[in-house]
Amino acid sequence: MLFFTQCFGAVLDLIHLRFQHYKAKRVFSAAGQLVCVVNPTHSLKYAPTLCAAAQTSTERGILPPCHHHEAVHDPQLVPCMCPLFSCPWEGHLEVVVSHLRQTHHINILQGAEIVFLATDMHLPAPTDWIIMHSCLGHQFLLVLRKQEKYEGHPQFFATMMLIGTPTQADNFTYRLELNRNQRRLKWEATPRSVLECVDSVISDGDCLVLNTSLAQLFSDNGSLAIGIAITTSKVHNSEAEM
Amino acid sequence: MLFFTQCFGAVLDLIHLRFQHYKAKRVFSAAGQLVCVVNPTHSLKYAPTLCAAAQTSTERGILPPCHHHEAVHDPQLVPCMCPLFSCPWEGHLEVVVSHLRQTHHINILQGAEIVFLATDMHLPAPTDWIIMHSCLGHQFLLVLRKQEKYEGHPQFFATMMLIGTPTQADNFTYRLELNRNQRRLKWEATPRSVLECVDSVISDGDCLVLNTSLAQLFSDNGSLAIGIAITTSKVHNSEAEM
Repeated sequence: MLFFTQCFGAVLDLIHLRFQHYKAKRVFSAAGQLVCVVNPTHSLKYAPTLCAAAQTSTERGILPPCHHHEAVHDPQLVPCMCPLFSCPWEGHLEVVVSHLRQTHHINILQGAEIVFLATDMHLPAPTDWIIMHSCLGHQFLLVLRKQEKYEGHPQFFATMMLIGTPTQADNFTYRLELNRNQRRLKWEATPRSVLECVDSVISDGDCLVLNTSLAQLFSDNGSLAIGIAITTSKVHNSEAEM
Repeated sequence: MLFFTQCFGAVLDLIHLRFQHYKAKRVFSAAGQLVCVVNPTHSLKYAPTLCAAAQTSTERGILPPCHHHEAVHDPQLVPCMCPLFSCPWEGHLEVVVSHLRQTHHINILQGAEIVFLATDMHLPAPTDWIIMHSCLGHQFLLVLRKQEKYEGHPQFFATMMLIGTPTQADNFTYRLELNRNQRRLKWEATPRSVLECVDSVISDGDCLVLNTSLAQLFSDNGSLAIGIAITTSKVHNSEAEM
């Protein structure tokens, strides 16, 4: 009986996912973009389980997020930048992607233009929606975070980071686009490197910022679709273009 | 002696204005757009002087902003929508433009694409920057407001309103664009009618919203340049375009 109940639940989940997929595809159908449904991670809650596999034999204990390598002797070592997870893992840039996939089960998507469909926007802060995006020979990390900078007033922050060095990051421009209800909001910037801290990017407010009312205007039934595009920008000419 | 001091002050102001003009032109030179330097109005302070000319003989006293026509019998009469001014004037839509020009000294600019250069962004909230924009046979009101929704955390809100009816407003799309420091932020929406209240548009957050850090990133020496474009949108196709 329990087996059948679980099966039925799984089928319902699949139908729900398919429905959300369909809705996002309808909105973004003109461009024929790949739509990725991204579920939230109310991450602090799950941190111990998810990070269990990453515990090293030295058991250095839980590091605070954004600890800026205090205990790191090799400057090429990166702490786990999976936002909000207090994961003690650290490693070289080259193995960050496999760590994020294997330990934190973060999806990776291919394509120059994709649609990030964040579900359950109503969940309380702090909540993160994260995917990796493989494009132009590099991997990027897209982080959408719901956070209360001012108590009682949650805001949404979206930014893209290159899993690479700051010098490599300077060669790209990313664009986040919201489009619904006869309103359109576009944010374009140079991605930051994951060697910088996602927490500081968000606390500086140097990203796409949405208050709750704007997020609601752009949401459809609790899901927010963000169109993402990455281009190379060796000679950054956005100011001249305008 | 006082005369010479005043003359010198005026010359300095002109040089300062010319310099700001030049800076904005440099940023927006590619498009050859008209740049308008807009000075702030910390309006509540000046309201009694500015509105003196508009006091009617009935002396109904100072109305609160956004009073929703409680005392208006003719539904075609519009209260003075000059934001934050507690101006008791009311009149028909056709004479709103001349009231705003003559009583509140709000500039009117011609052209499909202009640059709104708001000076002195550091001034404390509440502060407004306002111009009128004549384009496609209609007049629009652009309002940039610095306001503290959350105490101690001023934000900037920018919106465009048609000096016309909501049905007329539905025929247009306006775009506000910020572009500086390798970052670009674009907001596109249908303008609201001035028959709706600018205060409610801003309190709903249905406009371009900037926190202080983003405003600083886009500002140049305390001035914020906003590129403005208005287009007709009889068949609104922004969702299909994306």
